[in-house]
This record gives sequence, structure tokens and C-alpha cells, in this order.
Amino acid sequence: MPLLKSWVESANAPNGQFPLNNLPYGVFSTSGDARRCGVAIGDQILDVTALEQDAHLSISDDPVFVASSWNAFMALGPEVWRSFRARLQAMLGTEASQADREACSGALVPQADATMHLPVETRGYADFYGCRNHAFNVGTMFRGPDNALPPNYLHLPIAYSGRASSIVISGTEIRRPWGQLKAPEEDAPRFAPCERFDFELELGVIVGQPSEFGRPVSVAKADEMIFGYVLLNDWSARDIQTWEYQPLGPFQAKATANTISPWIVTGLALEPLRVSTPEREKPLLPHLQEPGPMLYDIDLEVLLLPDGADHPTTITQSNYSEMYYSAPQNLAHHTTSGCPIEVGDMLGSGTISGTTRKSRGSLLELSWGGTEPVEIDGGITRSFIEDNDTIIMRGSARGDGYLVGFGQCTGKVLAAYADPYSRD
Amino acid sequence: MPLLKSWVESANAPNGQFPLNNLPYGVFSTSGDARRCGVAIGDQILDVTALEQDAHLSISDDPVFVASSWNAFMALGPEVWRSFRARLQAMLGTEASQADREACSGALVPQADATMHLPVETRGYADFYGCRNHAFNVGTMFRGPDNALPPNYLHLPIAYSGRASSIVISGTEIRRPWGQLKAPEEDAPRFAPCERFDFELELGVIVGQPSEFGRPVSVAKADEMIFGYVLLNDWSARDIQTWEYQPLGPFQAKATANTISPWIVTGLALEPLRVSTPEREKPLLPHLQEPGPMLYDIDLEVLLLPDGADHPTTITQSNYSEMYYSAPQNLAHHTTSGCPIEVGDMLGSGTISGTTRKSRGSLLELSWGGTEPVEIDGGITRSFIEDNDTIIMRGSARGDGYLVGFGQCTGKVLAAYADPYSRD
Repeated sequence: MPLLKSWVESANAPNGQFPLNNLPYGVFSTSGDARRCGVAIGDQILDVTALEQDAHLSISDDPVFVASSWNAFMALGPEVWRSFRARLQAMLGTEASQADREACSGALVPQADATMHLPVETRGYADFYGCRNHAFNVGTMFRGPDNALPPNYLHLPIAYSGRASSIVISGTEIRRPWGQLKAPEEDAPRFAPCERFDFELELGVIVGQPSEFGRPVSVAKADEMIFGYVLLNDWSARDIQTWEYQPLGPFQAKATANTISPWIVTGLALEPLRVSTPEREKPLLPHLQEPGPMLYDIDLEVLLLPDGADHPTTITQSNYSEMYYSAPQNLAHHTTSGCPIEVGDMLGSGTISGTTRKSRGSLLELSWGGTEPVEIDGGITRSFIEDNDTIIMRGSARGDGYLVGFGQCTGKVLAAYADPYSRD
Repeated sequence: MPLLKSWVESANAPNGQFPLNNLPYGVFSTSGDARRCGVAIGDQILDVTALEQDAHLSISDDPVFVASSWNAFMALGPEVWRSFRARLQAMLGTEASQADREACSGALVPQADATMHLPVETRGYADFYGCRNHAFNVGTMFRGPDNALPPNYLHLPIAYSGRASSIVISGTEIRRPWGQLKAPEEDAPRFAPCERFDFELELGVIVGQPSEFGRPVSVAKADEMIFGYVLLNDWSARDIQTWEYQPLGPFQAKATANTISPWIVTGLALEPLRVSTPEREKPLLPHLQEPGPMLYDIDLEVLLLPDGADHPTTITQSNYSEMYYSAPQNLAHHTTSGCPIEVGDMLGSGTISGTTRKSRGSLLELSWGGTEPVEIDGGITRSFIEDNDTIIMRGSARGDGYLVGFGQCTGKVLAAYADPYSRD
């Protein structure tokens, strides 16, 4: 499918992030106004809350865009997701009726004038460890290459539950956390600001349909439940994790913040870009086998902008097709115990690392535990994130003559509070 | 403070669970009606939603008992918690005015006629590991007594984030989960019903006030944020956990269900029953030190009712004062990273085990990993839970001439689905 042309001219720009083929969903506000649901098209946002209020769009008997999230829409299910997308493409395409053009013209808001907010309400958040390259790198650093992968790694997608309350929108400033730290050579732990604060380059999958309490779902069914994808920065306090994670896994090391990009790129937009997971090194049990290609060819990059620098430096370039486990496999595994999945739940992919040094998805890997600092333009280096550094993630998938862009996921790291318990 | 007398006669019964000193909060419905907020008094429930609607109770400018949870009330803060409790005690005490008696008489519903529901909306759930006796038992089984406690154990309250969507109300039937299992002697994992399904005897703390994104709270402040306590059965699939938990902790092993008792026993009701945590074996860092006694003397027991048996057997008797870490310490630790806590969040204490065999809080410990099966009345034994067993937890704290009862937390374990992916 080639580039679909829109009468919104900016949507037809070569290598634009938001052509008519994309149409990602977000929540925005303009100065002083309530939050509304919107669809990105070119450099504009189509205000679908306004279109529904004006009765130009009718999705369901009850209004679905009144709340400031996409949850009510997601709950309607895949048939509605498909028909709504078709309606949007008809309204915004060059063959649109005069009535559609007029209604939509009045509902376009420049992205430059909008503030973006979390697009969904999320109660359940799990973070996976589904990239073999990342798991191998981290395992090699801590246990050597012969014991790098845990014995279960090739049999199931490892994950831990995380904090939904820590999910924040791109642009939110991140305060460097305090925590208990203890280096191997220290006798006792101390309470101090994190010294090894890091990012993790991930995709977050937004689940749009629930599962039943007590009932697992198949990988094929899980694929149908997925609504879309966002960029995800899983901020990680490496030194806090080292001390706390045995025996129950990471807790405060992963609880400071999880930043997501504002636009949900739908599974429908990514449909033409499916690719398969890599060949299995060990066969999976039947309940985790994929009935078809369930990854996507999505280019990803991370840039680091030091305080005061005039431009950011690209420090890694990776691709979502590097994952060993796909989002539907992760979601299916998440339900094996009968755990009920809810509309709006988010699953992190795990850090997305390629096989080369320049494609590693975290500073821990890029600087190899701090032993090989990364070079940043301007003659400086980084082992981990320093105060006032901004981390920028970008992603886009290349279709036949168009891009499906994710926009940006950014966050600036502020210095830790001098005394976190003081209100001064 | 002795027993406070109520004109609701059943509240004055010796050793009753719900005297005027207790007044726990729940959500209930009667046949065909909407869910309402209620307060247990004797064998009755005072329908505070009805009293508010009739303008006999006025908590705030906006109604707080319209939603089917206590979240709106909790959000109003400790001063309102105190004044509401005083108002309830005045309305239900023997000195109540005639107007109060008449209004309340019309708002009493027999507990026998009510169905109980989850009392709060919870987004964040973390489960702690704060009982040293339990950690020592489990560690001894797996690593021997010399290495039983992890190195961090005496320095911070270990925890993992869990699934809020799996929290269910007492009485909900629990379906035995499937999962990946692999015994040490097996070459590869298999997908099968859990063979070592267990309970864990815990208290759940309900947090009634939020914390700020990026800001930790002190132990003293955490104590003020706590609204109350419930009994918690943290259902645990031991064999699933053994295979999955390295390196990121338990995931599906703890995601099937978490059953809570329906009545939130408030911190205010427990106030006279405070006791200190045990003496520290190693000094805690200042941010985790308790400014005063923060445990409570609460007797706890677990009973097992096999299918068809005419009575349940008490299999363990423990006490909440056995904890090494208190709920305020757990909550304070949970915020060290700046993780924002929300109104309604729940924190599990961890399994509450005493130092004797008959006070262990799980079958894993009671049967010592299945090697010493537990005797049940009727000449049968249990190593782990069998199909159609019902697990019953009870708790009560003894005041000066009265009890503060928790009611019951029960769940029956149903056989696993023969084919969990089939709808037949």
C-alpha cells in the first residue's frame, strides 16, 4: 500500500511522521481547555471529541470521546477500531466529501499549539525482558558469556509487574531518585542519590481488550487484543537494582518513572510492516508459539542532549525486529495463570538492543557497565545519565513510500533533592 | 478504653467481631440494588450511602459515598477520618439522640442479607516480604540455615509489584492455574496445572492518602497516610515461581488471585493496640527507622475445609506482631525512588509466620516443602492445596474488654480447566 494522500497538505510531506497511513491516537489540550481525544495528521491534530460532540462522528450509542482517554473507544473492540480508521481515512483523504472537509477543517488544531497528555488510563503495567541481545549483554556483564542467559530465557518471556502510577507523558521532567546503594566492597548500604541512572529503549504495547479472570488467552487471541504501540523509556536505577533485586526482582529501581510517547500507533497502521521473530534456539511450548509474524520493522534511536549543548547526539540505533519475543507472546504468557488483563494495560517489550555496539538500548550496555564511556559530540563522554541530560527516543517504520512515525519520547533528568524529606 | 456500648444490641455481644470500638468500612449490595458504602456494627451494616442521600450525614460539600468505593472518603484525609468515626460512635452509641437513632435504624441492613464487594479501587499493589520468620523458613528450605536470609534482608523491606486486577473479594472461587513447570530433574519445562498451589497469610494495608511524584515520605508521614487493614490471602503457585522467578522475581506465580476480606479495619480502631517491631538485628538507616510502635497485636488463623468435610481444621495460628517490618516502613520504602503512591493502593505485609511449626503462614512452610504433610481432621493430610479445598483466614485484635474483628477471608480452589484454551 503506497502513501495515501490527504487534503491536509502537511500529511503528504516526504518522510513525514503522520501521513494518512498512520493516524495515531492521543489526548491533548490547548490553553485553558479540557483534555480531548485527537488524531495526528501531518502537523495537525484532528479533534475527534469536537467532531463527536457536533454529531459529525458517531461511534456508539453513548459518546466515547468525552473522557480524557481512549479507553472507552478501545473497549468497543477491533471491529470498531477498523471501521473508525476507515472513516478517518475517508474524511481526511483527497476524495473526502465537502461536508467532511468542512467539519474536519473546523476541528484541526496545530500540534504546535497543543499540550499532550497520557492517552490511556492504565491500571496494569508489566515490563518484559524479551530481547535476547539485551539479556545476553546484561548476563555477560554479571555472569560471563557462558552463563549469560537464565535457564528459563528461551522457554518463556520473563517479566515483572511495574507501577502504573509512574507512567508519565513525554516531556515530564524526571527527578534523580534516592535509594539504598551498596557496592560489593562496602560493608553496609547507604541512602544516597542514584549514581547509575539509565534509560532503557523499549516499545510499550497498549492492550485494548480485556481477558477473563481465570482464563488464559492464546497468542492469536492476544494479537487481536492489542490496540497499539508507544515508545517507552523505562528509567532504571542500576545501583539500586543491584542491591535490592534478590530474591523478588526489581522494585524501587524501576519505580521512579516510565515515560511514554504521546501518540498510540495502532496495530492497524503497522499491519503492512509485520515481520517474524528470529528463529527459535529451542522450540517453544505450543501455548507460546506464534501463528504468524508478530513483530514489526520499526527503526528506533536514542539521542542524548547534555545541558547547554546546541544539538543532541545519537547514541544508539536499534530496531524492534530484534526482539526474541513479540508483544502477543508476552500478553499470552501474562494470562497463563488466569491473571485478568484490563483495557488500557501496558506491557513493556524490554530493552531493544541489536547485536552491534552502536545498537545497544541502554547506557549500561553502551558503556559496558561504565567501563567504556560513550562519546558525545563536543568532546564529552557518558557512562550513565548526568544531571540535566535530556534523553530523546524516536521511532518510525518505513512503508511503501511513507513512514509510520511514533514522534518523540523525551525526558530531562533533574538533580536529586539535596534532602528529599525536607520541603525547603 | 473499654467496650463502648451501642444501642445496636448485637454489637455488645461478648467476643463479637464488630463492636462500637471497631466500625470497619465495606461496600455491599442487597438483591437487585446498587453497591453502597457501609459500616459493620454487630450483625448489621449501617448504610452510610443512604444516610448521606437523606442528608442525615454530611461529610463534604460533594457527596462522598455515591461511588461504590471508599476512595472519595479516603481522599479527604485523616482529619475527616477522625471526625467521621466520632460521628458514627455518637450516632450508634447508647447516648445517641432520638433523631440519630431513628435515622440509623432505618439504614441498618442485616449482614446476612448483604453481598460484600471490594471496598476500594486499587491501582497500585505491592507485596512485601517483611516477616523474618517466613523469609528464614523459605531461605532455609532452598539454601540452608546459614544462607537463609538474603544480604539485603535486614536493611530494607523487600517487595515486588503485583497485579491489582487480581484482587478479589472474600468468597470468590479461585481456579487452579496452569503454568510452565520444570522440576530440577526434568530436561525441559511443560505446560500443566500447578501442582503446588498454596496460600499465604498476610495483612493488606489500604493507603488513604497520595504521595507526590518524585518525593519520598518519612515513616511517620507514611503512618498518617494509612487508612486501614484487611486480611489478605496471597495465592501462590510455588512450582510456577521456582521456574520463572530468576532474574526478575515472581510474575505469573502471584498473578492468579489475591483475596481480601471485605471489611477495612481502620488504623483508628487499631490505635490502642499498637506494638513495636522486634529488636533490630542490624540498625536500620535513618529513613527507615520507626518513631514509635507501628505494628499491632492481631491474632490470625488459617483453617482448611476439605470438600465435603463437616468442619474446617485450624492449620496455623499466628500474630501480626511477628513482622520484622511494619506497614509504615514498607510504605516509606516504596516511595524512596519518588514512586507516587495513590489513594486506594494496597501493600501486602508478606506471609506472617511465627517461630513455631504451628504458626507458619503457608503450606510451603507448614509441610516443609511437602516433606512433612499437615494433618487435617478426618485422618487426611495436605502438602499443598487440593481441588475443592476452601482456605479460611480469620483475624481479631483484643482490646480492653472487646475485640476488633476482621471477619473472614475465604476462597475455594476449583480444579484447573482440562483445556484452558477451549471454551467447551
